[in-house]
Amino acid sequence: MGDATVVDFATLDRMVRNAPFHAWLGVSLKSVSDEGVEIALPWREEFVSDPNVRYTHGGILAALIDLAGDYAVAARLGRGVPTIDMRVDYHRTALPGPLVAKARVIKMGGTLATAEAEIHDENGKLVASGRGVYLTLAR
Amino acid sequence: MGDATVVDFATLDRMVRNAPFHAWLGVSLKSVSDEGVEIALPWREEFVSDPNVRYTHGGILAALIDLAGDYAVAARLGRGVPTIDMRVDYHRTALPGPLVAKARVIKMGGTLATAEAEIHDENGKLVASGRGVYLTLAR
Amino acid sequence: MGDATVVDFATLDRMVRNAPFHAWLGVSLKSVSDEGVEIALPWREEFVSDPNVRYTHGGILAALIDLAGDYAVAARLGRGVPTIDMRVDYHRTALPGPLVAKARVIKMGGTLATAEAEIHDENGKLVASGRGVYLTLAR
Amino acid sequence: MGDATVVDFATLDRMVRNAPFHAWLGVSLKSVSDEGVEIALPWREEFVSDPNVRYTHGGILAALIDLAGDYAVAARLGRGVPTIDMRVDYHRTALPGPLVAKARVIKMGGTLATAEAEIHDENGKLVASGRGVYLTLAR
Repeated sequence: MGDATVVDFATLDRMVRNAPFHAWLGVSLKSVSDEGVEIALPWREEFVSDPNVRYTHGGILAALIDLAGDYAVAARLGRGVPTIDMRVDYHRTALPGPLVAKARVIKMGGTLATAEAEIHDENGKLVASGRGVYLTLAR
Repeated sequence: MGDATVVDFATLDRMVRNAPFHAWLGVSLKSVSDEGVEIALPWREEFVSDPNVRYTHGGILAALIDLAGDYAVAARLGRGVPTIDMRVDYHRTALPGPLVAKARVIKMGGTLATAEAEIHDENGKLVASGRGVYLTLAR
Repeated sequence: MGDATVVDFATLDRMVRNAPFHAWLGVSLKSVSDEGVEIALPWREEFVSDPNVRYTHGGILAALIDLAGDYAVAARLGRGVPTIDMRVDYHRTALPGPLVAKARVIKMGGTLATAEAEIHDENGKLVASGRGVYLTLAR
Repeated sequence: MGDATVVDFATLDRMVRNAPFHAWLGVSLKSVSDEGVEIALPWREEFVSDPNVRYTHGGILAALIDLAGDYAVAARLGRGVPTIDMRVDYHRTALPGPLVAKARVIKMGGTLATAEAEIHDENGKLVASGRGVYLTLAR
């Protein structure tokens, strides 16, 4: 299992945008390198959890952690991978505004891969972080 | 911290539907009792992850685990609670169709509560399960 | 993947006791059925975390969650399995005394299995719970 | 909540060694700085999981992740903290030999703190990693 990225920016960005749920979220690839990937998430009013406080729903942040980790693995493997399980830690309420998720592979194996991701808001504040385990085994 | 539900069906259902993200998801309360809550999620085309296989995105399932656990706690507390962290296990691909999440409180405390949830498809198959930790401390 | 136990009590108990770390812990099988397994953990002074409060170290409880889930899977598979990842929630301090872990398989698959476990003290109080993912794939 | 270490090496090392379970494990502080802590774990025969393959039991690695994260928080807080929940990912079998856990605080708050830890073997190979959430609220 290589430590190097095998997919170029345009191809991976197309993979990211290809999923209908990703198109709804509005996510796009910001960067890809051997260090990992960055995924940008613009704001949508439908992301709101509490209509009074107007912070981003935890499910949106969980989706972003999951998919960012997935594409960190996909960048090395050349294809998307099913998530086996995921953990998300919520650190701060994410108020309306764009977010960026940065993900890197912790361990790449022929059966499984583990990746972690951090989500920052536009002020650079850490709002959530987590990790996922993905099935890399070809089926 | 009581073991009993303190919120009636209509009030809790209104709380569930109140969040803009929940309105987009289309979730509604199916049942509430001292044993826990059931939340129904209808199908939307935007839930699709892979446009070829058309299964539900893991982020949608994660959101459903998170919110079902949250309302299991809210039913006993009378108010929604922030999620501290969450774990989701994906057991089967969820093909297009309605889903139901069943959640129950594992431990209710004055600072924290832990709840677990299982998501089944319309054939009764377990597609995902998980648990969340919520902050019950009044602030 | 069968839903039934394929290992008898004496064989599974021998598997449980066989590991040197398990021998040190003092764990033994209490029951095995199609519903899952129960593992008993007697008390040892070396389990103490804080010498003033004398509660059980979280690492001991984590080991018990991990191994109980593992034998819930092993009971159906006929062999022990490597743990891929694990989550533990700590609900109450576990004061000196015997503990029992009850574990059941949530999902059994040909590549992976998920099991959950709960640990109760001798008064029946829930002290910790959690879940593990195990590799069932024959290698 | 400060970003700086408030405990000197000798004091924190005494805290690490103070717990009876830590004394049995043989852990000691290797370094402490604003970047985090390093904890050394020497080898013991009782750590063995499978007597044939002789790798380290997952419960030992889980204990090490938990305590390393705990002391990363303690270094900034000046006291040990209860673990709320923990996740461990197992990346490689850890064969007999000393291990080192490196932990750092991800988020420090007045109610909760999140810390992550990685365990490497003597060849620098990553054998396990994970994260814990700790209660920092003074009680």
